[in-house]
Amino acid sequence: MPAVTVPVTVTSVRAVKVRPGHSVELPEQVVTEEPLEIRIAGPGQVASPVIVTMRTPGHDFELAAGLVYSEGLATPDEIVGAGYCDAVRDDPERRFNTVTVSLRRPWTTPDRGRSFVATASCGVCGKSNIEDVFLACPPAPGGSPLPGSAVVQMPGRMRAAQPAFDRTGGLHAAALFDCSGTLLCTREDVGRHNAVDKVIGSRVLGTAAGSQGAHGAALLAGTALMVSGRVSFEIVQKAAMAGIGSICAVSAPSSLAIQAAIQLGIGLAGFVRGDAYNIYAHSERFDLEA
Amino acid sequence: MPAVTVPVTVTSVRAVKVRPGHSVELPEQVVTEEPLEIRIAGPGQVASPVIVTMRTPGHDFELAAGLVYSEGLATPDEIVGAGYCDAVRDDPERRFNTVTVSLRRPWTTPDRGRSFVATASCGVCGKSNIEDVFLACPPAPGGSPLPGSAVVQMPGRMRAAQPAFDRTGGLHAAALFDCSGTLLCTREDVGRHNAVDKVIGSRVLGTAAGSQGAHGAALLAGTALMVSGRVSFEIVQKAAMAGIGSICAVSAPSSLAIQAAIQLGIGLAGFVRGDAYNIYAHSERFDLEA
Repeated sequence: MPAVTVPVTVTSVRAVKVRPGHSVELPEQVVTEEPLEIRIAGPGQVASPVIVTMRTPGHDFELAAGLVYSEGLATPDEIVGAGYCDAVRDDPERRFNTVTVSLRRPWTTPDRGRSFVATASCGVCGKSNIEDVFLACPPAPGGSPLPGSAVVQMPGRMRAAQPAFDRTGGLHAAALFDCSGTLLCTREDVGRHNAVDKVIGSRVLGTAAGSQGAHGAALLAGTALMVSGRVSFEIVQKAAMAGIGSICAVSAPSSLAIQAAIQLGIGLAGFVRGDAYNIYAHSERFDLEA
Repeated sequence: MPAVTVPVTVTSVRAVKVRPGHSVELPEQVVTEEPLEIRIAGPGQVASPVIVTMRTPGHDFELAAGLVYSEGLATPDEIVGAGYCDAVRDDPERRFNTVTVSLRRPWTTPDRGRSFVATASCGVCGKSNIEDVFLACPPAPGGSPLPGSAVVQMPGRMRAAQPAFDRTGGLHAAALFDCSGTLLCTREDVGRHNAVDKVIGSRVLGTAAGSQGAHGAALLAGTALMVSGRVSFEIVQKAAMAGIGSICAVSAPSSLAIQAAIQLGIGLAGFVRGDAYNIYAHSERFDLEA
């Protein structure tokens, strides 16, 4: 997590803007993504962690109260208010990332068992606090840099191979490429994370081209992931868990996606459109001259 | 859930296409959204439900195997294969919505406690099987129909009121309107569900315009929700939990969003662009003449 102490909607980063014939590093603004831990407390109770949601800082009390209501955990009449949690006031990384919703009645954590639901766009579930969100991902294995000439062709190659080319306006696509830019697998889903899991799963089950003979940790080493939309934290985490070396996206990365990619050694390119793209992490994973 | 027995990527629905001066009901295709229950079993074990994810049917085995791998639940070498679950073979609604991933080693459900993480786009968490996904939402309370002239102005009014107009390419917006089309509240977030929770929360905490004096179940009765992107099942469920009467979206609804809106009495309009929009559920919630 960035060492921010005040919630901000937009984070300034530096990006290598790759354009035909030249590239230049410039400041750029990306949307801030940070985990928010929501706790609930009744009168006199110690606040209990209930959910962690990735979110853009701002209107955090409304988010916490609205989620507690819309998830059926409490009625509006039962909600007294919401505030940043005093217990983490001295921790700069958690000071504005932990909100307690206060109820008029005692709070009892519902017993939902040990399983959980991920919705179409949900990647990481099952954790109870902010520390747990950051799974212990191994650093990405090394590999040949991805040729820049391949990067700009990846969106078109993915689109051309989409088995059910989107005619509904509601589908995300993900594709896996080898380090030379050869397409290995394309999958679609209403959820961006599902599309990523499908291409990863195609290697696990050996149903994608080129997946024979690779096993274990080497299964996805040297591959690049292309996604049709934005890149949030969970996409980077999924790629890291699978050993993918670089991620290219048609749209924007979030602040936490960039930070995770930097920490995990993953190359990250966004706004891959026409002949241009921006590199947000590990530019050595891309060969701009090739 | 639709009574489908075979996975399909695209679902045919009927939509009222509202254009300047006329409207016509026509068939349309929307992306299919269905819950998939993923189970894990070791040798000789009964399969344990682990996660339910909303997804577009197709490549379900890859999705299950990929998710089990990318979430760190098993390595590729431990995964033997995946298949539809025999135990639900005679249930037409679950036949192709339940997949078991088979491991070479015994499976032990990790103890993740009773809380969970929702990522930026995650709405409904904490359920262990398909039935639990469908929360008991009350039918939407009645209210005046939303004037068609207001519907087409809602995207512009929302955009004009965005406090941090998106300059990153990564922000979703949601807005709440009263039944005459007057803007009550606009919020932004990297996650579409969070933006919705923020506008709902603004009424719970009384921080939005017009929110004084309304309490309990009447808190959001007679309001309309506008979202900047697509409408998936969880958005409709959140609106239903809060008593919102109609939902308007700039982009497409999913099949399950439409079905939920029909069941819960919520008006649902999509592709609200320029002077035109499509109505997918409860057209009586919209006054096309006004």
